[in-house]
Amino acid sequence: MRTILVVGDGMADRPLKELGGRTPLEAAETTNLDAVAKGGVCGIMDILTPGLPPGSDVANLTLLGYDPFESYRGRGALEATGAGLDVGPGDVAFRGNFAYLDDEGVVVDRRAGRVDGTVFREYLSDISLSAYPGVEVTVMPTLGHRLAVVLKGESLSWRISDIDPHKTGVRVLRSMSIDGTAEAKRTAAIANELYSVLREKMIRNPLNRERAARGLPPANTVLLRGAGAIPAVKPLTEEYGVRGACVAVTPTVRGSCLSAGFDLYDAPGATGGVDTDTIGKAEIVEGVLPRYDVVFLHVKGADNASHDGDPRLKISVIEKIDAMVGHLLDNIAIEETYIAVTADHTTSTRTRDHTGDPVPVAILGPEVIPDIAEKYSEQDCARGGLGRIRGKELMPILLNLQDKVELYGS
Amino acid sequence: MRTILVVGDGMADRPLKELGGRTPLEAAETTNLDAVAKGGVCGIMDILTPGLPPGSDVANLTLLGYDPFESYRGRGALEATGAGLDVGPGDVAFRGNFAYLDDEGVVVDRRAGRVDGTVFREYLSDISLSAYPGVEVTVMPTLGHRLAVVLKGESLSWRISDIDPHKTGVRVLRSMSIDGTAEAKRTAAIANELYSVLREKMIRNPLNRERAARGLPPANTVLLRGAGAIPAVKPLTEEYGVRGACVAVTPTVRGSCLSAGFDLYDAPGATGGVDTDTIGKAEIVEGVLPRYDVVFLHVKGADNASHDGDPRLKISVIEKIDAMVGHLLDNIAIEETYIAVTADHTTSTRTRDHTGDPVPVAILGPEVIPDIAEKYSEQDCARGGLGRIRGKELMPILLNLQDKVELYGS
Repeated sequence: MRTILVVGDGMADRPLKELGGRTPLEAAETTNLDAVAKGGVCGIMDILTPGLPPGSDVANLTLLGYDPFESYRGRGALEATGAGLDVGPGDVAFRGNFAYLDDEGVVVDRRAGRVDGTVFREYLSDISLSAYPGVEVTVMPTLGHRLAVVLKGESLSWRISDIDPHKTGVRVLRSMSIDGTAEAKRTAAIANELYSVLREKMIRNPLNRERAARGLPPANTVLLRGAGAIPAVKPLTEEYGVRGACVAVTPTVRGSCLSAGFDLYDAPGATGGVDTDTIGKAEIVEGVLPRYDVVFLHVKGADNASHDGDPRLKISVIEKIDAMVGHLLDNIAIEETYIAVTADHTTSTRTRDHTGDPVPVAILGPEVIPDIAEKYSEQDCARGGLGRIRGKELMPILLNLQDKVELYGS
Repeated sequence: MRTILVVGDGMADRPLKELGGRTPLEAAETTNLDAVAKGGVCGIMDILTPGLPPGSDVANLTLLGYDPFESYRGRGALEATGAGLDVGPGDVAFRGNFAYLDDEGVVVDRRAGRVDGTVFREYLSDISLSAYPGVEVTVMPTLGHRLAVVLKGESLSWRISDIDPHKTGVRVLRSMSIDGTAEAKRTAAIANELYSVLREKMIRNPLNRERAARGLPPANTVLLRGAGAIPAVKPLTEEYGVRGACVAVTPTVRGSCLSAGFDLYDAPGATGGVDTDTIGKAEIVEGVLPRYDVVFLHVKGADNASHDGDPRLKISVIEKIDAMVGHLLDNIAIEETYIAVTADHTTSTRTRDHTGDPVPVAILGPEVIPDIAEKYSEQDCARGGLGRIRGKELMPILLNLQDKVELYGS
């Protein structure tokens, strides 16, 4: 018995005027998602608690079965491990952007013209902090203008605020302790020192002359944010004795799956954007499925389309997810596989942001108790037999269907 | 975007024989409540936990989004602040009745013939406790035979038992510490001393001679109960950055709303009883709505009718609430307003008391996902798309619909 958990990032929505009061899931042609809903058991799910919008990092940890309020320790480490960096217990990691500051130190472009930061990789490979010689620093450019940073050393804390001001037209911030502990104060000071060192390096960076010659903004600083430690979790694979695989591009999702003990797989043509090839993802899942108990299959694009406020684009990504699920239904042994479909959160195409609305969930498989829901939509799933569940409850429900959950009591 | 939360106190019920097995909500003509249910999303809601009957004080704090088991600290302070008294951190307040004891000290009439206690206001304006000179006492007659008392001083605790025996034919009780702490023991002793002082004053009270001449029972004591401190809550208005208004007569509800940081409004003709003018309340709400994000609109009467065991009277109050909601629907901009209707608890007209049954809830507004529920009733709302939620979840659900809840995670 196996489970494929299909997560359509930000796929759920609210009724939209542009769609005549329908949600994108209602407006899209979703024959295969609807087949999962019609043949399976459906429900709605509050990822965290009713009304509370989840960040992507928290949401994916929760879908892996972890209590978000206990396990979450910031985004940085999820993103860094997802990008292939080693982050161990006690380490602190950051996300960051290569960015452009003017001569007054004011942020002009938070992405430095969407510079490809991998060109700076070698140049940033040897960073040391003279005031903190015991702290080992790794800087790794990742996708586009993004980077990850890992600090290793004694007495570090992830409870510090961002240097990235998250907007243009202002100066960068100084990192501060959030919880007032000595560790957090020390780590904030380390982050500020690291910022100064990286800023000096980036100002002197010879590649910026080339960029200037081509009329491009210089990448003359690094904005750090999202300090985090590895989540306080026991790998799901150990907890339940299962083998897990993850097919995802988004670093945070990959990092969450790594925390759960899952193996990571890349799919050809998977981009993490709206142009992603979902059939390639289905084929990878079909290939690895025989070796795993649980496959976490994440598709990002619908969330991007929502953040861009584009309902038609969102519908097109949903239809690609539908085609992916169709490919799975055609090629897996459904008599020994559960397919669950859900979203990691609702993203409103009107507000262009995550909301705290529940997401629809549908589970098809050999031993589910079916219900009257016929369509994979926010409205129809609310009539389903699962009722209203919490995000952290989905994974135990799936593992239980596979008979992988041990008795409590005797 | 705005929200009006309509709370029909004790409006929910169980099927009643007198109504042919229908509940008062089912038997009443409720075109407007049904319009909210039919166009909106419905559900049932356990104010606390399934089966646990909530007190009015706890229920209203919970509807304001607070965890009742963490935030509740007795009724006294809610009632005192709701009546306009100042109760700060560390203070302890009581509710009380003017009452009549016979010569043996036995309670004959817990309301002293429903005396209008405001006549004693001046007479009780200067109370001091010789054994506790550091404790400042304020006694304030409120509505009818009721009063509020506030103690200010060092080391006070609200964890003490009532002096009011809550029945006739017995002697008054001595207040005792509930939790065994030094503060509670001291406060119980203060309450007992205060009782003696008030009893002496009331026995000597010259107005009782007039009452005797008119054949009325003397108000010769004050029964104290419901010791309380201000709830352990952060104002909702600060937590979510919203502006809140409260239209209610009942002191406990007003006090709860004050704790949440809401402004209080009075409505002409609102009495807190079954004779209240609900249209006047609707008009006040319509007037203040443009200045607020959330309006808490409470109508007490249906609870009174239930405590009196009168289903026909309860139906008539429900129909007045329905007319109030109709007035709102006719006069507000529904495209930018959410109207939620619920009860703070079920009150059984048979047992004449609160029960632990869930209450129906319906939310109408621009971005709700509708469902198949067509009537605002206990039975129909149980088929709705909200499923079964908890009382403390309603406010975050409403604030999320207004995009007022911040992301957890990133």
